[in-house]
Amino acid sequence: MIYPPALSDEQYASLVSNIKDWQITHGSLLKLVETDEENTVKCHPVGTTLFPTLFPKELFHEAHALQKAYNKLYAAVAEDDEWLLDVLKELFDVDDLASALWEIYQEVKEEGFVQDLTLGIFRSDYMMHVNPIESSHRPELKQVELNTVSCAGGVHTNRVSDMHRHLHRTGAYQPLVSKEAIISSSSLPLNLTLKTISTGLSVAHRGYGRPKSAAMTETCILFIVAADNFNIADERPIEYALWDEEIPSYRVSWGHDILAHTSLTPTRELLYHATSRSVAIEVSVVYFRAGFEIHEYNDIGRMARLQLEKSRAIKSPSILSHLTGFKKVQQALTIPGVLERFVSPDEAVKISRTFAPMYPLDDSLSGKQAKKLVLEPKTARNHVLKPSLEGGGHNVYGEEIVAFLKRTPEELLQSYVLMEKINPPLLDNFMMSSRGLYEGRVISELGIFGVCLWKRVQHGESKRTEMVTELAPSWSLRTKDASVDEMSVVKGYGCFDSPALVDWEVFMSVLEA
Amino acid sequence: MIYPPALSDEQYASLVSNIKDWQITHGSLLKLVETDEENTVKCHPVGTTLFPTLFPKELFHEAHALQKAYNKLYAAVAEDDEWLLDVLKELFDVDDLASALWEIYQEVKEEGFVQDLTLGIFRSDYMMHVNPIESSHRPELKQVELNTVSCAGGVHTNRVSDMHRHLHRTGAYQPLVSKEAIISSSSLPLNLTLKTISTGLSVAHRGYGRPKSAAMTETCILFIVAADNFNIADERPIEYALWDEEIPSYRVSWGHDILAHTSLTPTRELLYHATSRSVAIEVSVVYFRAGFEIHEYNDIGRMARLQLEKSRAIKSPSILSHLTGFKKVQQALTIPGVLERFVSPDEAVKISRTFAPMYPLDDSLSGKQAKKLVLEPKTARNHVLKPSLEGGGHNVYGEEIVAFLKRTPEELLQSYVLMEKINPPLLDNFMMSSRGLYEGRVISELGIFGVCLWKRVQHGESKRTEMVTELAPSWSLRTKDASVDEMSVVKGYGCFDSPALVDWEVFMSVLEA
Repeated sequence: MIYPPALSDEQYASLVSNIKDWQITHGSLLKLVETDEENTVKCHPVGTTLFPTLFPKELFHEAHALQKAYNKLYAAVAEDDEWLLDVLKELFDVDDLASALWEIYQEVKEEGFVQDLTLGIFRSDYMMHVNPIESSHRPELKQVELNTVSCAGGVHTNRVSDMHRHLHRTGAYQPLVSKEAIISSSSLPLNLTLKTISTGLSVAHRGYGRPKSAAMTETCILFIVAADNFNIADERPIEYALWDEEIPSYRVSWGHDILAHTSLTPTRELLYHATSRSVAIEVSVVYFRAGFEIHEYNDIGRMARLQLEKSRAIKSPSILSHLTGFKKVQQALTIPGVLERFVSPDEAVKISRTFAPMYPLDDSLSGKQAKKLVLEPKTARNHVLKPSLEGGGHNVYGEEIVAFLKRTPEELLQSYVLMEKINPPLLDNFMMSSRGLYEGRVISELGIFGVCLWKRVQHGESKRTEMVTELAPSWSLRTKDASVDEMSVVKGYGCFDSPALVDWEVFMSVLEA
Repeated sequence: MIYPPALSDEQYASLVSNIKDWQITHGSLLKLVETDEENTVKCHPVGTTLFPTLFPKELFHEAHALQKAYNKLYAAVAEDDEWLLDVLKELFDVDDLASALWEIYQEVKEEGFVQDLTLGIFRSDYMMHVNPIESSHRPELKQVELNTVSCAGGVHTNRVSDMHRHLHRTGAYQPLVSKEAIISSSSLPLNLTLKTISTGLSVAHRGYGRPKSAAMTETCILFIVAADNFNIADERPIEYALWDEEIPSYRVSWGHDILAHTSLTPTRELLYHATSRSVAIEVSVVYFRAGFEIHEYNDIGRMARLQLEKSRAIKSPSILSHLTGFKKVQQALTIPGVLERFVSPDEAVKISRTFAPMYPLDDSLSGKQAKKLVLEPKTARNHVLKPSLEGGGHNVYGEEIVAFLKRTPEELLQSYVLMEKINPPLLDNFMMSSRGLYEGRVISELGIFGVCLWKRVQHGESKRTEMVTELAPSWSLRTKDASVDEMSVVKGYGCFDSPALVDWEVFMSVLEA
């Protein structure tokens, strides 16, 4: 079987034109911040695939089913500061972001915590992996990473998924020659990621309850965002959805604006002073869509984060939950026996099945094994070196790793982990972005959004995590040109996508075609 | 009372930034067609006011109440080809569009009509008028024009109205100093224009019924649009709304594409051959968003319109209904006694109250009076000369009229009408468009969308019009810098707006402030 079907020139042009118009009218756009003028600004469509990409139905559902265990795991890790310190402490000398966050955490801890609820909005990213030796086997899920802060792409995917479903109903995906169509409306799952994220925030908002400060009558959710943000179309709709539920939601830019527009009461309620309002409003939830890059932690950035973190507002994420997204944590969780500290043996088995082999680059036995692997070109090729940074933009791939190790001081390597490369099946699709049109082999990354509100329950020295509310997980899909390593949607390499779910039989027959 | 309230620099910047983001994420945009590339295209926000503009509640409701009579009037006129011929015949030698349309009508008439239903999507435009002599009097409604073809702005206004309501709920319109706010949520009427237009089309679609051609199983609505259209955001959402009601809707560009993608069966069903579909689909309704400019009526354009017009599909508008939008018709309706041919005496009174004095430029008594008026600079100033073209882009104002008359051959003047200038009250607002930011005096134009499906009932020589379905009217509001004559939103002079409805007392006190 062949997928996607071949297109005539006219069909191709018509599909592209329909997609552009759909994107313009549905906010499936990036703001061109460099064109921002006093009175106007330009924007253009975000990268998208023309067709939904094939994805095995079974793996799609497996990834959803797994999320409950991942939520539990990452909530538990985020409340275990001893274990986290143990994993991260070697980083502090070499990773300024890790140390900045830890210092803020320490300072808050000394003052004592006034909020025991945390909202997790996680995105666990998977690729399909085919065992290179037994390549006729069915692909399985391997986790690329689990993001715990500022998980993006939820709204963009939601839009592109809606668009693929719209195009499908217009007949755009009908093969010209009368063959059985591989996709049908039932194979295009409804995407509810926007609703899932906004519901998570509203659940936390209600969890916060009435204003605690006597002078206040209202509460609001505060989005912490990047100034001059090109990606407002992935954030603003969440804000509007909250307003539609009559939950006031405002946004403040990272840094100085946080200090200028928020304050703490003596009992640590966080107050927001809106430009447009004469009275302050108490903040129920702080939702971070910024504050995950080291350059944001200058003196003002640190003070800003500290102020938010000290406050009674529910944070999404808290500092510790933010730190659980570091690659070092991901790698530490792959060490045999570790998962059982946080989840049941049964859950541990399911989770660990999605782990690719990972190694530290230290003097441990495992670290030594890692160095051996990358010195041998044959095994180096199958590996990728990842720093503890958010996103995938700073990875070192395959045979480049050796040269990188040589020029990098030993102590800096502490912040890197070595991961066995995932070997994804290659599918076909068309993509369009500001970089151009593309037709050919593609690789997809499925993200599962896990949204949960948990409570830290402390009895003397003993702490445990209690899940308060957990939403049904939702998904995102990003797809890139198979010949490019990076999945950056921003740079136009990656495109938003949605899956066309198919049975194994169809999937394997397309793979073999 | 002062409205809108003064803004601090920070409030102004915050409001503008919030508006840009809202527009980007809600398709309140214009497509920059000159940037259209194979793989991407840029777009930017459509012009908008920052605040809703004050509007007297009573006049807003009066304009809505009037629409039923206007629908009846224009449906009746559109079925009275004798009267129309009488009014328009002098135009045919000088106005190529009028004659092209009339020729097509004649050709269809000769073959005989196969569809007795017509869908009207009208927009009756009003300005408020203050008697310049008794300027302390309350303003009243005066009709600028009634549009019968391709009435635009419905979706844009809907978006901007939603935006103003959103900004209001965020507190953006709250005066900084604690005074009573002039606007409240109940003063911002809900705009349902998108829904009104799409419902009109779906009513007509259902009115068409099952496919008539034996080979067909489905029907669809066909949008006739301009190629390289910058204004897709005002059209596409109607198409998507129809799909949401499971009504297939497609678009075809004016001209060659109509001939390439449609065909007539021997029994004159119109078939649409989509690029993306292997089988044709029968057209229930043809919705014109193009075909109203003379340059579109070259040989191919004429053939295309003729093919659509001959067909069994319901047209919105039909050729005759299209012709009723000519200024000559508007002027002819102001002649005493004429309205009573089409509507009840009571309706005639209500309608004629909204007429500004209008004159032909011919040799009639009325025409001679017109020429006298424009020769005198004092009276010329109060007049505007309008050609029979769609839109307001070709008007000649005040004292420029004399020079224009001198350089224009007598016979060409047949296509112009002279209209007494409406003297609108000046209000204040902020506007932003690609032309810049503006703060100052503004003038608004209220459009009332009348959507109705009517039937031509013929008994021998006697014809009458039967209203089949009439929807509750909806509205648009456009606002411009008071010092500019043109209301062109496309050129950035006019901005989309929504009314803040107030009692007379508040309105007059703001006027006097």
